Amino acid sequence: MTAYVQHEMHPTRWGNPDGATDLPESARGLIEMVFGLDERPTVVDAPLPTPGIAPELVDVLRGMLGEGNVLTDDDARRLRTRGKSTPDLLRARAGDLSDAPDAVVRPESHEQVQAVLDYAVEHHLAVVPFGGGTCVTGGLVARREGYAGLISLDLVRMKRLLAVDHESMTATLEPGLRGPEAEALLAEEGLTLGHYPQSFEYATIGGFAATRSSGQSSAGYGRFDALVVGLRVATPRGEVRLGTSPANAAGPDLRQLFLGSEGAYGVLTAVTVRVRRLPAEKVYEGWHWPSFDAGADAMRTLAQSGLLPTVLRLSDEAETGLNLARPDEIGAESTGGCMMITGYEGEPAANAAKRAAVTGLLESLGGTCLGEEPGRSWAHGRFHAPYLRDSLLDVGVLVETLETATFWSNRDRLYRSVKQALETSLGEGTIVLCHISHVYETGCSLYYTVATKESADPLPQWLTAKAAASEAMMDAGATITHHHAVGTDHKPWLTREIGELGGSVLRAVKADLDPTGILNPGVLIP
Amino acid sequence: MTAYVQHEMHPTRWGNPDGATDLPESARGLIEMVFGLDERPTVVDAPLPTPGIAPELVDVLRGMLGEGNVLTDDDARRLRTRGKSTPDLLRARAGDLSDAPDAVVRPESHEQVQAVLDYAVEHHLAVVPFGGGTCVTGGLVARREGYAGLISLDLVRMKRLLAVDHESMTATLEPGLRGPEAEALLAEEGLTLGHYPQSFEYATIGGFAATRSSGQSSAGYGRFDALVVGLRVATPRGEVRLGTSPANAAGPDLRQLFLGSEGAYGVLTAVTVRVRRLPAEKVYEGWHWPSFDAGADAMRTLAQSGLLPTVLRLSDEAETGLNLARPDEIGAESTGGCMMITGYEGEPAANAAKRAAVTGLLESLGGTCLGEEPGRSWAHGRFHAPYLRDSLLDVGVLVETLETATFWSNRDRLYRSVKQALETSLGEGTIVLCHISHVYETGCSLYYTVATKESADPLPQWLTAKAAASEAMMDAGATITHHHAVGTDHKPWLTREIGELGGSVLRAVKADLDPTGILNPGVLIP
Repeated sequence: MTAYVQHEMHPTRWGNPDGATDLPESARGLIEMVFGLDERPTVVDAPLPTPGIAPELVDVLRGMLGEGNVLTDDDARRLRTRGKSTPDLLRARAGDLSDAPDAVVRPESHEQVQAVLDYAVEHHLAVVPFGGGTCVTGGLVARREGYAGLISLDLVRMKRLLAVDHESMTATLEPGLRGPEAEALLAEEGLTLGHYPQSFEYATIGGFAATRSSGQSSAGYGRFDALVVGLRVATPRGEVRLGTSPANAAGPDLRQLFLGSEGAYGVLTAVTVRVRRLPAEKVYEGWHWPSFDAGADAMRTLAQSGLLPTVLRLSDEAETGLNLARPDEIGAESTGGCMMITGYEGEPAANAAKRAAVTGLLESLGGTCLGEEPGRSWAHGRFHAPYLRDSLLDVGVLVETLETATFWSNRDRLYRSVKQALETSLGEGTIVLCHISHVYETGCSLYYTVATKESADPLPQWLTAKAAASEAMMDAGATITHHHAVGTDHKPWLTREIGELGGSVLRAVKADLDPTGILNPGVLIP
Repeated sequence: MTAYVQHEMHPTRWGNPDGATDLPESARGLIEMVFGLDERPTVVDAPLPTPGIAPELVDVLRGMLGEGNVLTDDDARRLRTRGKSTPDLLRARAGDLSDAPDAVVRPESHEQVQAVLDYAVEHHLAVVPFGGGTCVTGGLVARREGYAGLISLDLVRMKRLLAVDHESMTATLEPGLRGPEAEALLAEEGLTLGHYPQSFEYATIGGFAATRSSGQSSAGYGRFDALVVGLRVATPRGEVRLGTSPANAAGPDLRQLFLGSEGAYGVLTAVTVRVRRLPAEKVYEGWHWPSFDAGADAMRTLAQSGLLPTVLRLSDEAETGLNLARPDEIGAESTGGCMMITGYEGEPAANAAKRAAVTGLLESLGGTCLGEEPGRSWAHGRFHAPYLRDSLLDVGVLVETLETATFWSNRDRLYRSVKQALETSLGEGTIVLCHISHVYETGCSLYYTVATKESADPLPQWLTAKAAASEAMMDAGATITHHHAVGTDHKPWLTREIGELGGSVLRAVKADLDPTGILNPGVLIP
């Protein structure tokens, strides 16, 4: 069991500021040309609201967990205020810390989590489970009215690899392990989880499970919910343990009820996942397609042929143009077609065989291989986008992402309607980029990046556009989110997706497991 | 939309008696040698209980569905009494029809199903959804006490292929389609579902989904719950529609709550499934392994290498010995190792490539290819076992199957303990056979066939053995069922598998969707 380094995120920016880089001068010039530069100051050391929890309750929690594991200082509270969506950052930059928790508790075991929940039930404290703090859908913004206080339950001390089963190829991980920490522990055993979402550096095992995360290597390793074979959960009514077998017919699969439950049904205290052997080789390459349609059809053919690389992603014309652009080209119509990235992670011989088969199929479908340089470039920058967003927000460029998924036959309709909704809402000069990064036999995800000039009041500017995009998703019969969960931001559309009775079922389970409603109140449950 | 032929099952035997064959004389000799022959007569035309439903309610149902679609005759009631487990057959053979429904209703659409449920709520009628009637876990034996009647809701008229999406490779099927009927409709479109459980000839799409069925080609096509991308459900509180995308993060996956719900939460009225192109070639072959362990390890290696044939099954030494036995060998210790069947369904080139890769791996692990003859033999007899059971029951041999699943590292312990529990309970002369027919990266199923001489009172004889086997599964931390659902037979063990709180969640969902408890009362829900 290795020691961990505590990487705290910045309260108003993504990640650890030591890891961020300033916008290069060339990029500043480019941005100035497209959007103009409009430096936006951040309010520093904004005041925190007076804690709403009684000091004697804090004292009891300290007695329970140890003095150092119940934090009420400003920094601790500031760092656990909301997540990392652009609206979250805009509020933080404006000095709005009204959603700060009253205290941060850091249990070290299932038993301590259970004890905190029991105490919270007894005193009607609202509890927000906290992993990496990377949520982008308002899942950390719980309702506090009516509660005796709001505590952030930080899983930062639960970072053990609890068990490894080399025969069954499973590992049991504690929820507080961040992506790199989990991979480091597994690497010591020659294993990998292979889960690399863009939030990889900060997001945690518990968060991956609670939000049904999907990573950049999902074509090869599967989305996170598909990796989970067992769960241990602390709920306000006690413990739940699930996972007797890979799959079974012993009634509904209750694992699938806790996956995606976003802390509203319980706190995941151990997650047993399928693991793979550490790949000896990772190779990524680029492919050129004449159009987004042609590339997407090729992805569909790969998925339906059971011939998927480990990484498979395709940028639309706009995203391809921007990624490849030189400053003098910006604004010109891109005629360059679309870039696809394919990646192979595994034994060299297996990689070579798969790569040969995929290459043959893609060439037969009209793709042109561009070699490994575009693949290296993608791999190098794969976790950088959130840092870039900070730099753009600094100069008055509003940047945000959103995503959805549908069946293949509905892909083009969904693609166009969401894009149009965003462009119409945000007006001239808006850049809407899209890529497909998760594919299935029957469908795929669509991930949008949007950039526009910030208005004087960027929060409503974005929320209006987001609502328009969400309506377009619902009108197209698609999902409100492929891999970012519901939180509070997507709640207005959830009932439209799962129906009134679906919402009723979610409420019934909530009432059963959390009868007094202390867990993440206001999040997820319609 | 093709017409369908109504294959009624026999009330005391498996399948349509026209399709059954008598026990060949050679087999009779063999059985006589091992167990002795003890002809067991079946009570024919046993009296049915007086219907407990008021005639005026039946009249209203007739007005709703049409005269011919509400049946109260003896044959109709007899044919929908219980399922096809050995205990069900023993009761039927003894003339016990106490679980017969009072009436059989046959709606033809979602709207008619909903109307029946609404009427059942209003008059507190218990409703048992009925597909192929092949249940082997008591899922058709609902509690009738406290209800104004018990009606069998037969989905036999809902046999349409509602939609095909060739681009997304999905099809939407009505629940009453039996396996061959669904395949025939899909074949007209050049498609296949690829779901071939032993009950294939009679079991239905709705039943596959409601019980989380798994078929003999699960290694290639996936278990049924993994094929489902969309569901339409009629519940006592109204309609539920699920399935906006192959996978998403819009909260818990509620599809996984209706899959395996055994008619206790609603009636599935449409199921959207992933389909595949109709295979141009099907090839099966046999492999010899020195031991069950060696063969099972090879299956694990295949699964963990991502190199699975379409069909993959392995008989233990006892099952291999019996399958290959000549009469003069029975009773002798089998020293013949174990038989594995591998099958490839697809395009010839793809089959050849996969077969070459699998062959190379299996040979390197110590397997010996026996060519296609054993594969043909398996494929020929793959749906025959239930007919053979009838013939054995006729001569006083008690035969039944049961199954479970676990992770690979627990396979041997589970295998031995369940086998021992059965042998200990049933005593000397009992034959316990086992095979692995469903594999995953992290584990596999174990499927047992048991044969012993019937005692004077075979029902308690079997139920005692079944309980001992179930206890062994629970003691080993395995599942009570890999693909046969909970019904009433597995209910005593369900809470041990999913915990008290897991049971509480199932009850909460039940109370929400079926507040007056009209749906399959007593089935599944702890």
